[in-house]
Amino acid sequence: MTTSTTTEVIGILGGMGPAATADFYAKLVATTPGSSDQDHLRTVIWSDPTIPDRTEALLGDGPDPTPWLLDGSRVLREAGATVIAIPCNTAHAFVPRIADHVGLPIVHMIGEVARHLTTVSPPIHTAGLLASSGTVRAGLYQEWLDRYGIRLVLPDAASQDREVMTAIHAVKSGTRDGTTTALLTRAAQRLTEQGAQAVIAGCTEIPLGLSADAVDVPLIDPALVLAQALVRRATTESRAG
Amino acid sequence: MTTSTTTEVIGILGGMGPAATADFYAKLVATTPGSSDQDHLRTVIWSDPTIPDRTEALLGDGPDPTPWLLDGSRVLREAGATVIAIPCNTAHAFVPRIADHVGLPIVHMIGEVARHLTTVSPPIHTAGLLASSGTVRAGLYQEWLDRYGIRLVLPDAASQDREVMTAIHAVKSGTRDGTTTALLTRAAQRLTEQGAQAVIAGCTEIPLGLSADAVDVPLIDPALVLAQALVRRATTESRAG
Repeated sequence: MTTSTTTEVIGILGGMGPAATADFYAKLVATTPGSSDQDHLRTVIWSDPTIPDRTEALLGDGPDPTPWLLDGSRVLREAGATVIAIPCNTAHAFVPRIADHVGLPIVHMIGEVARHLTTVSPPIHTAGLLASSGTVRAGLYQEWLDRYGIRLVLPDAASQDREVMTAIHAVKSGTRDGTTTALLTRAAQRLTEQGAQAVIAGCTEIPLGLSADAVDVPLIDPALVLAQALVRRATTESRAG
Repeated sequence: MTTSTTTEVIGILGGMGPAATADFYAKLVATTPGSSDQDHLRTVIWSDPTIPDRTEALLGDGPDPTPWLLDGSRVLREAGATVIAIPCNTAHAFVPRIADHVGLPIVHMIGEVARHLTTVSPPIHTAGLLASSGTVRAGLYQEWLDRYGIRLVLPDAASQDREVMTAIHAVKSGTRDGTTTALLTRAAQRLTEQGAQAVIAGCTEIPLGLSADAVDVPLIDPALVLAQALVRRATTESRAG
């Protein structure tokens, strides 16, 4: 399996946040098979951290990021991208507003996570979600997991606010200490106590603050699932081409 | 100090290799002051791992990467970049061939390292270099360190070939194990035995395989020095603007 003959150029619409974009690109590189630079996928990344906060927009507290997402997609298309990946869960709430205008396929991170959950053995009937309040409010995982008959459990309002969002803001501000890990570990435990057989780290900042070891059940990293989907797509396209 | 009002858009000409590009962008994000996404610098990254091997070209064994570097620079300029950074030491051998055609300033990583060495206390009179054979052969660090009156010491031919290049290829192929670290640690020791008061990790793969703790003298990471130079430039431009 090699990607070296592919004509695919991965477009990453990033900056939400920038650390998560760097982490996602590192995962894409690590996931790509090959032993030399030349085996890797050509990639263009537009990382615009000035895109208005997605959660604030969804909660009605800030400007709509849609124009920024459209601008970034245009930059990626003009740079030669053949497919777009958005390593930000919350931004997927805006995908329906941009999909018809982008002119390129978008590999949908949340859809890929839902599909991935159906391939895990033993089967997962209940999944827990650690995500931004914007992602939760927009019902993004709810919608996709419903399609596959997987029940979703969420933190209660207090845990969402005081544990999950506090930890996300800490990672975004560059703080990744024991307190952040403890907050996320406690929030994850609350989900497994509700029956979650897997926990979705549904905000790209969360895997930066919570390691898989800290959770009793599989911790699903959507960025990694998205990276794997892109590599699978590129290698399939390569073999077909 | 904030970068949030800057009009600077960082263009990263990357893919040489892709893991080093991901690492460089992570360092740029970590170096940027600020507590929210919106404090970070807009960045566009063109990561083309299919660019022909720079060392092979310099040793006369492979195609000239200059056309690929020019293409990538054009993509970055058209995407809105206002400055270009190239997180690959060896590629700097080709900077004189592209600089006049890029239409954007290039922040020169090797020039920044040489300048940085003059600011370290106590003063550094002799620096050692761990770099690809292409970088060594092209005399890139030699030229810049000469300008500042710093003596450069290099591995002997056997160490360059069997330790440094073996380790660089191991990191490029995704291997970062104890053997790689041991090879680089031994090569660094040989440089300090020759009087090096600092060791330049002069290939972006080397900091991925060698930690600063493993070396008795300061280990200079050119990617970090370049990231700091870009942030300084953006914040200065911001204050002036």
